[in-house]
Amino acid sequence: MRPSNRRPDELRPVRITRHYTCHAEGSVLVEFGNTKVICTATVEESVPPFLRGKGQGWVTAEYGMLPRSTHSRMRREAASGKQGGRTLEIQRLIGRSLRAVVDLQKLGERQIVIDCDVIQADGGTRTASITGAFVALTDAINGLIAAGKLTESPIKEAVAAISVGVFEGTPVLDLDYPEDSACETDMNVVMAESGHFIEIQGTAEGVPFSRAEMNALLDLAEKGIRELLALQQQALAG
Amino acid sequence: MRPSNRRPDELRPVRITRHYTCHAEGSVLVEFGNTKVICTATVEESVPPFLRGKGQGWVTAEYGMLPRSTHSRMRREAASGKQGGRTLEIQRLIGRSLRAVVDLQKLGERQIVIDCDVIQADGGTRTASITGAFVALTDAINGLIAAGKLTESPIKEAVAAISVGVFEGTPVLDLDYPEDSACETDMNVVMAESGHFIEIQGTAEGVPFSRAEMNALLDLAEKGIRELLALQQQALAG
Amino acid sequence: MRPSNRRPDELRPVRITRHYTCHAEGSVLVEFGNTKVICTATVEESVPPFLRGKGQGWVTAEYGMLPRSTHSRMRREAASGKQGGRTLEIQRLIGRSLRAVVDLQKLGERQIVIDCDVIQADGGTRTASITGAFVALTDAINGLIAAGKLTESPIKEAVAAISVGVFEGTPVLDLDYPEDSACETDMNVVMAESGHFIEIQGTAEGVPFSRAEMNALLDLAEKGIRELLALQQQALAG
Amino acid sequence: MRPSNRRPDELRPVRITRHYTCHAEGSVLVEFGNTKVICTATVEESVPPFLRGKGQGWVTAEYGMLPRSTHSRMRREAASGKQGGRTLEIQRLIGRSLRAVVDLQKLGERQIVIDCDVIQADGGTRTASITGAFVALTDAINGLIAAGKLTESPIKEAVAAISVGVFEGTPVLDLDYPEDSACETDMNVVMAESGHFIEIQGTAEGVPFSRAEMNALLDLAEKGIRELLALQQQALAG
Amino acid sequence: MRPSNRRPDELRPVRITRHYTCHAEGSVLVEFGNTKVICTATVEESVPPFLRGKGQGWVTAEYGMLPRSTHSRMRREAASGKQGGRTLEIQRLIGRSLRAVVDLQKLGERQIVIDCDVIQADGGTRTASITGAFVALTDAINGLIAAGKLTESPIKEAVAAISVGVFEGTPVLDLDYPEDSACETDMNVVMAESGHFIEIQGTAEGVPFSRAEMNALLDLAEKGIRELLALQQQALAG
Amino acid sequence: MRPSNRRPDELRPVRITRHYTCHAEGSVLVEFGNTKVICTATVEESVPPFLRGKGQGWVTAEYGMLPRSTHSRMRREAASGKQGGRTLEIQRLIGRSLRAVVDLQKLGERQIVIDCDVIQADGGTRTASITGAFVALTDAINGLIAAGKLTESPIKEAVAAISVGVFEGTPVLDLDYPEDSACETDMNVVMAESGHFIEIQGTAEGVPFSRAEMNALLDLAEKGIRELLALQQQALAG
Repeated sequence: MRPSNRRPDELRPVRITRHYTCHAEGSVLVEFGNTKVICTATVEESVPPFLRGKGQGWVTAEYGMLPRSTHSRMRREAASGKQGGRTLEIQRLIGRSLRAVVDLQKLGERQIVIDCDVIQADGGTRTASITGAFVALTDAINGLIAAGKLTESPIKEAVAAISVGVFEGTPVLDLDYPEDSACETDMNVVMAESGHFIEIQGTAEGVPFSRAEMNALLDLAEKGIRELLALQQQALAG
Repeated sequence: MRPSNRRPDELRPVRITRHYTCHAEGSVLVEFGNTKVICTATVEESVPPFLRGKGQGWVTAEYGMLPRSTHSRMRREAASGKQGGRTLEIQRLIGRSLRAVVDLQKLGERQIVIDCDVIQADGGTRTASITGAFVALTDAINGLIAAGKLTESPIKEAVAAISVGVFEGTPVLDLDYPEDSACETDMNVVMAESGHFIEIQGTAEGVPFSRAEMNALLDLAEKGIRELLALQQQALAG
Repeated sequence: MRPSNRRPDELRPVRITRHYTCHAEGSVLVEFGNTKVICTATVEESVPPFLRGKGQGWVTAEYGMLPRSTHSRMRREAASGKQGGRTLEIQRLIGRSLRAVVDLQKLGERQIVIDCDVIQADGGTRTASITGAFVALTDAINGLIAAGKLTESPIKEAVAAISVGVFEGTPVLDLDYPEDSACETDMNVVMAESGHFIEIQGTAEGVPFSRAEMNALLDLAEKGIRELLALQQQALAG
Repeated sequence: MRPSNRRPDELRPVRITRHYTCHAEGSVLVEFGNTKVICTATVEESVPPFLRGKGQGWVTAEYGMLPRSTHSRMRREAASGKQGGRTLEIQRLIGRSLRAVVDLQKLGERQIVIDCDVIQADGGTRTASITGAFVALTDAINGLIAAGKLTESPIKEAVAAISVGVFEGTPVLDLDYPEDSACETDMNVVMAESGHFIEIQGTAEGVPFSRAEMNALLDLAEKGIRELLALQQQALAG
Repeated sequence: MRPSNRRPDELRPVRITRHYTCHAEGSVLVEFGNTKVICTATVEESVPPFLRGKGQGWVTAEYGMLPRSTHSRMRREAASGKQGGRTLEIQRLIGRSLRAVVDLQKLGERQIVIDCDVIQADGGTRTASITGAFVALTDAINGLIAAGKLTESPIKEAVAAISVGVFEGTPVLDLDYPEDSACETDMNVVMAESGHFIEIQGTAEGVPFSRAEMNALLDLAEKGIRELLALQQQALAG
Repeated sequence: MRPSNRRPDELRPVRITRHYTCHAEGSVLVEFGNTKVICTATVEESVPPFLRGKGQGWVTAEYGMLPRSTHSRMRREAASGKQGGRTLEIQRLIGRSLRAVVDLQKLGERQIVIDCDVIQADGGTRTASITGAFVALTDAINGLIAAGKLTESPIKEAVAAISVGVFEGTPVLDLDYPEDSACETDMNVVMAESGHFIEIQGTAEGVPFSRAEMNALLDLAEKGIRELLALQQQALAG
């Protein structure tokens, strides 16, 4: 039995609120149950130095957590003077996941910066971030099209992400914090609309996992991501 | 005429939402018009090294802005590796303002850390932070009383803060960003329930200001803070 | 009774020594009693990136304390790897105070950097810094005029600063360290020759202060700054 | 055809040299073709603060590259003042992979620090590091047993790692740099002797990958890791 | 001919002013011509971690330059976030030079921190620092004896330092900045009262130097240091 | 008697292995007994900002130690966020030593970066670094000549370095770690093929040293460096 009484293949209630803050070109509050992340997309009419003059754009991401988004207060990274390894790992993952669905040539020499800031954490912040960030990115790109700066969308397909894991011997979908901190195996899956994978990161926290367990987890992940992709479309249609 | 069509002595719509996030001992979303700040209060059962064994507590604050809380994206301080001068200045001001209304002996050897994180900025983030932080602090202290860890409240009186300034020759209350960036003189006033001042910080952005102007600004500030103190009480009673 | 036996409205002996070191375009040793600060002004024929090509100049300041300028040794900021919040706050104040009396258009595309380094501290280092820095700035600008690089002075009026506070119930002028560390209310006032204010920063260290106390402190500050402005003129005439 | 003329399921020549440097408790040079990594294991008779007094040990890892281990010189991380995101990601992976095969209770209150330093890079540095680090860790633990500090080995089973990827449409084993920089999908697999997985990290560099491709890659990885586990045993027996 | 018209074996005018600032246990302004350094000695009743409980003391040094002590302004090290290599090199040299003449056992478990801060630079700042620091150290130690904390002086003998160099083919004593920046060979010599050397650091800036040149430079240095040792004694007797 | 049973004037076995790693323009493993350093030379077709457009080149060096190159593990400088004073001092010494034998005009507007990374330490790492770095530099420059980018070698003469010291009263050549940590006086000597000195750094670790001791040490150093220069030539001829 899951602590939240969910079925093994049941997502938490997911909400995607567009136009959440007023300044960014895309701004989304994404909620996976009690996990809440603000995802903004900023359009910058320049690219990082390594891309200058190459006729292509870039999509990058930064990730942060408010110090008291968690059960006990975490040290503020701005105060400690550096971003931790987990933060860097997550923001690199978000950036790669979004770049995989964007045609950077079509984007032109501009950069879209995604900021994912967790205001409340209950497990799955990185997968919520990717799922929400895609909607913010889409809003920002639609803004470029509306402004006549782009004639066609450089977005190739949608992308969403979910965590899955083996909790007390059972493969479950969308781990919340109590599950995440107790589970034996934890996998984050990023999948595109086509059903193909962009990232799979599986980690045995305790006992190494078998090929069969892995397959069961991937089945769950595919189901969950299908639902998330539908929710993204609903939000964008709303 | 003010860009927002407000009267010179009119606050923006102020909203104070308690229990905004779920983990912190006090958690408040404070809104002064489009300025939105999450203020959390964390209780730690230890004090900083300089106070160990002295039988008194401490209240301190940290402040941050989400990178895209502003019109154009600011660099993330965690990524740049240090907090800027403005950030440090504001978080020192918030900490001093709250300590001025708390009896640190009565608090006992524990620390309350206030985090003020701006999710949307439109001027007045530091005064909104102080005003919201007082409510979060009160909730955290009431929690300590409810838990039997304190028998009486160490809070001596309420505190709130507002900005005032001379905009196009007229003293006005609660500057929003268009006013703040154009005004000649800018003053942040922190006042306690008793009507006495805790901090007054007046700066001539352009033309130095006279004693008479200063007095007019203080009159406006007193009026505004009285209204904020009433709104805090309403929120705490709610 | 003040620890120094001064009358409530009495400044400490103030000395302003020009040409204190030999390399800088302006170099002043300013002494407020035992507080001693070296203020140098450096002329740089370039402006910071955010001003390039805008046809105006800039004045900025940096502040530091020798590790053993104080009663007990402070950690060297260069060794700890960052400037503390108090340092940043003070140097921002010095910079704003000087910019308020300089016509940056008339200065042309050049920058004047003021360095205020405290070699001995006994309270009031920031106000001594501003008072001395104005003299160093004036010498640097007069050098530009003498060299034919400027035809008229961009200095609009003189500026000086003093601290005032309520010590054992009495408003006093120019706090020394024993007063500063014991006083209830502490105010730093920066005023221009015109008698108008550039900055007022009042802080209740212990008990919040009333409007009446504030007015008494401002009266004292005006008297003290008038005397400092006269001493600056004497030094510049010397 | 692979640039190295290897068959799709062929590892590069692998060499594991024990006792490579003289001071560390375990010291291994591991070579996967032209990729060369020095892996040392250091035994420290203390644990990090978060584990003190809990009666268990810890295994952690650090990773670095010599500036000119690569085709063009990389900036020295010690000079730039921080470890990059890739470095942190890799050293976290190495640490997790080794902890997964060590019984930390049996290790007792001591820490083993693994340092993996790449002296020459040609793809696969993280998987070579894990493979070599396991041998260095085993030597260090055998030293503890020989010294009578441990009575039984806390090592539960062996671990090794390999990269696999889709290169020009074909799944291949043990990517070298020319393959790694051109491949569509890249997967790092960490597997224990039991045939169960510890980490799977698959990334679509270009085109998202299907479930079938993933399965082909995992088959290759299993084959390669079996060979590596045998080579580790040979080296430890030697 | 030397730019200063000095004879090859002539020191610049040297002045040693004790009790230069009021808080430190030893405080000296040392002047070698236009080079001016404030040297303070701080007594701390604790030792660094690596010496705790070993029954011996420590002497260490820090060095800094005011940003405008030099011809053109140098970046403030506190602002750039780290001490440069030259700074670290010099402060390590000062520390070693003083420790060489102090019996650290006799000093007891306390530390003396020497701060050398250059307020005006014209060559030879490190040798002036050592020469002045010895006087500040002696004052601090005499204070400990006067306070009954030490019964005998741990100072074994005096130490002073001077620079020598080959300038336009001629060995000269006590290089000033114009000589230092143009000379072929530069040597800093630290010598104790006994006539034995504590440090010799010779560097060929341009052309490598012969054994004969080196001997001529050491002869000059011995002569100069003899004079400095006498000036130290005069100052301490004063 | 020396711990290694060497005669006082006997070097440790010295080995110089060229082409040690495959990517760098020059790559040498230098061994002085158990001290092993990888020295690479990287050619960059640009110069640092302070030299741009001056028609001359630059040679610079960086130095590092693997964390477990030493008896007990040292903290990784990349992890601690800065290079220590000893590291900076050594890399400055290596850079100066090499620049002294290179005609920077002839090198043209390009930079050669030398990286010296200690993989095993047993005393004398800086002198081994200089000795090995010269060979790597020569290989890199010969590569430029072979590629037609230089028509004649900018190398003026060879350079090598050795440490000497007074160990238990006897001057000895090429200190290993047991000697280095126990010796009274320690001197590092950098000498060119011409027999002239480039750097002499003598330090009294315990008792100050006399002129006679210094001369004995220099005699030893000259003998040792002559042997090293011959070994460099052999290696380059090999």
